[in-house]
Amino acid sequence: MATENLDKQKTIDLRKKHVGPSCKVFFSHDPIKIVRARGQYMYNEKDEKYLDCINNVAHVGHCHPDVVEAGAKQMELLNTNSRFLHDNLVLYAQRLQATLPEKLSVCYFVNSGSEANDLALRLAWQYTGHKDIITLENAYHGHVSSLIDISPYKFQQMACAEPSQHVHVALSPDIYRGKYCEDHPDPAIAYAENVKDIIEQAHKKGRKIAAFIAESLQSCGGQVIPPVGYFQKVAQHVRNAGGIFIADEVQVGFGRVGTHFWGFQLQGEDFVPDIVTMGKPIGNGHPMSCVITTREVAESFMSSGMEYFNTFGGNPVSCAIGLAVLDVIEKEDLQGNALHIGGYLTRLLYDLKKRHLLVGDVRGRGLFIGLDLVRNRDKRTPATAEAQDVIYRSEQFKPPMCFSREDAELVVEKIDQILTDLEKTLGLQMSEALISENGHTKRKEPSDENGLVHPSIGSSHKNTGTLPHDKKTKKRLKT
Amino acid sequence: MATENLDKQKTIDLRKKHVGPSCKVFFSHDPIKIVRARGQYMYNEKDEKYLDCINNVAHVGHCHPDVVEAGAKQMELLNTNSRFLHDNLVLYAQRLQATLPEKLSVCYFVNSGSEANDLALRLAWQYTGHKDIITLENAYHGHVSSLIDISPYKFQQMACAEPSQHVHVALSPDIYRGKYCEDHPDPAIAYAENVKDIIEQAHKKGRKIAAFIAESLQSCGGQVIPPVGYFQKVAQHVRNAGGIFIADEVQVGFGRVGTHFWGFQLQGEDFVPDIVTMGKPIGNGHPMSCVITTREVAESFMSSGMEYFNTFGGNPVSCAIGLAVLDVIEKEDLQGNALHIGGYLTRLLYDLKKRHLLVGDVRGRGLFIGLDLVRNRDKRTPATAEAQDVIYRSEQFKPPMCFSREDAELVVEKIDQILTDLEKTLGLQMSEALISENGHTKRKEPSDENGLVHPSIGSSHKNTGTLPHDKKTKKRLKT
Repeated sequence: MATENLDKQKTIDLRKKHVGPSCKVFFSHDPIKIVRARGQYMYNEKDEKYLDCINNVAHVGHCHPDVVEAGAKQMELLNTNSRFLHDNLVLYAQRLQATLPEKLSVCYFVNSGSEANDLALRLAWQYTGHKDIITLENAYHGHVSSLIDISPYKFQQMACAEPSQHVHVALSPDIYRGKYCEDHPDPAIAYAENVKDIIEQAHKKGRKIAAFIAESLQSCGGQVIPPVGYFQKVAQHVRNAGGIFIADEVQVGFGRVGTHFWGFQLQGEDFVPDIVTMGKPIGNGHPMSCVITTREVAESFMSSGMEYFNTFGGNPVSCAIGLAVLDVIEKEDLQGNALHIGGYLTRLLYDLKKRHLLVGDVRGRGLFIGLDLVRNRDKRTPATAEAQDVIYRSEQFKPPMCFSREDAELVVEKIDQILTDLEKTLGLQMSEALISENGHTKRKEPSDENGLVHPSIGSSHKNTGTLPHDKKTKKRLKT
Repeated sequence: MATENLDKQKTIDLRKKHVGPSCKVFFSHDPIKIVRARGQYMYNEKDEKYLDCINNVAHVGHCHPDVVEAGAKQMELLNTNSRFLHDNLVLYAQRLQATLPEKLSVCYFVNSGSEANDLALRLAWQYTGHKDIITLENAYHGHVSSLIDISPYKFQQMACAEPSQHVHVALSPDIYRGKYCEDHPDPAIAYAENVKDIIEQAHKKGRKIAAFIAESLQSCGGQVIPPVGYFQKVAQHVRNAGGIFIADEVQVGFGRVGTHFWGFQLQGEDFVPDIVTMGKPIGNGHPMSCVITTREVAESFMSSGMEYFNTFGGNPVSCAIGLAVLDVIEKEDLQGNALHIGGYLTRLLYDLKKRHLLVGDVRGRGLFIGLDLVRNRDKRTPATAEAQDVIYRSEQFKPPMCFSREDAELVVEKIDQILTDLEKTLGLQMSEALISENGHTKRKEPSDENGLVHPSIGSSHKNTGTLPHDKKTKKRLKT
């Protein structure tokens, strides 16, 4: 490891010289240099503390000692490929399977969410013999070329923003800002009908659907929580067309939604995807990931005659780390914590909405929460510039799962202050009438069901969400 | 980590139940369960020792203590994404750059050779504005869908073995079994002319070349060492067509070839690729990899407007491990060891050729050595079945770089014995005439240049190359 400690400017200079300029840092005008982290806290080179509100990779907390120990011990003993038998591989596969419906029983271990989603496409193509993929507006599924193709969030950044011929973009099931909102009698069916229409259009052109892919809750795409029943209906349409359903759990899986271990389970027990892909939180930062599918899909993939070999995937170190992460989630009841602290944070944010015109919507599940900032509540005009420039995208919360009540209070206090300053600058002020009306929406107050608000939609940006502690807040955290 | 120790049959059963059947084990009729490893030795559940002859991932030796320590220490301190500044990232980029020609100065850190090669394609597509890729016969560049497309080694396993429209397959520059052999006056120019022809054909169809991609020495493709000058000529043709040259060093980089740190450097100092991709050995088993390119290509990639973000790529743990691997290669002069032991092993194998009709060719560079088994030396008929079934593909050597003289002697003794038995079964016997002639080829004896034989070609299969030690050999190793 690096024994030198570079001056921050030297780090910046070397980065400019030797790291791809497409690889952005947070706060590019004054980037943060983090040198250590623990739990939900990160520290810069001056030992100043930051509260990490968005790192859904450091799932069980930065540098969790159990995870570090498991990794270090296995590194000392053996790290080789999966062409040899190893207990870690099979025990881990068994443990992961146990979190899922029984028919999702066959695992492929890979190194990243991107590798997982690309493999999911390969499985779908082989199993169905079809080529076309239906993806959602604003979706992001990874950085390899096949996934840029199915990620409007990415390909729309390009000059040529047209999707590839085999890619169809469906409406995002967004009931706050989408085509069918919470006042629609059945947005789940309405949004699923859009997928059905797409399939019919594709069939007219002689094209065939291999798969529908969606995050179980859209993350980069704006913290969108699909209405219950949507996935069931979509799966029905897609399967009728000979395609399969891929649930992308890369960002939202592993207990984050609080009530369930997987995001797709929010849709109800009658919904089972054909493929589930995992990623970010799975190894608490260790590069690993997994695809789980049915025996039928797996057998079909084998029948192509092509071996699947992934050099690093499923190595004993990755599996040891994956097992340790599952152990910690269980031992520390982090899913329960996500439910309770997530609910508490949501309620605090909902209180903010009562006092700040800029807050258009608060929505979330467990510790996956979005704060939707608007310029105009009636028109629901996104306050993109405000969110980006002032709060610097801190409108999305997906912190390490060990987040505490005090952390939640600190975050909300900070946001309250920022919103107050911002509204002063913008000349926005809430009238007495508005305060009593509490916004105009027909939506319910946050219910106590799961300690969370009812479904709705989200902000449209990734965020950094690291919150610098000033002295006052540092003191608070220490008490 | 796994605390249970499963009975081997239980491990096999669980694997069948929960791991994709396309993921093959070595020796599927009686797979090996490895529980620990150190240096070039692996141990099964009965503590029986195996000599690892093919693991080019455990580059500096299995579980090297310096690498383990670097990884463990950094895991304890911080593991986060590259949107924060970190010294490990920039110091590692600087160290890697220093091994390469100056113009290859910009790094992208990713998680696997597949991610690296896919990114290389994306860079080429963006930089050139062209789409077509020229790849070599038998090439393998990775398992994500874009790379299956350019890997004849893979796509030819499929029922539909036709390459995609944008993919062109060039002749492998194989001077043992290819179109132009060692008796051709200039195979480098002749093979490069084939690439030129392909470009002209593509242009006639209105297609445009984005890149030529090749492993610096073909690995799965049959241990092919391209004749010197071939890459220069190909690069000239490809650049004239507006394309770029991608050197895939995933299997052969990091000093393995002995005389040089990178395989492409065997072509001479006048050759510089536009992109170099790395992988397998880079982290001694840790899932990581890198793409290095020129400032021009990197700036063009940025100009697309699309950010590149890789969740795990370039994290402080991966970079700490990468730095430690470079340190060990240097400290233990493993490149020098590859040169000397590789040369010694090649000479021992060449001696085998004098005594065994089945040995058609021995070729290699450093510790990247191929033994080409033939049914008929004149016709150079590959002895595929013999190589697979009897020696079980042990014809390829790419062991951990700490391989010793004793290891080399043990391997050759084992192969000698197997070949003797096999030739007896097949009724092959070397005549006095042949022995004195030492095969019929016009090739030179192994020269002492780099301690290695002259260039030529290779076996056409991946191999397992783990050699079980019987009691006798164990004893030998202990002395």
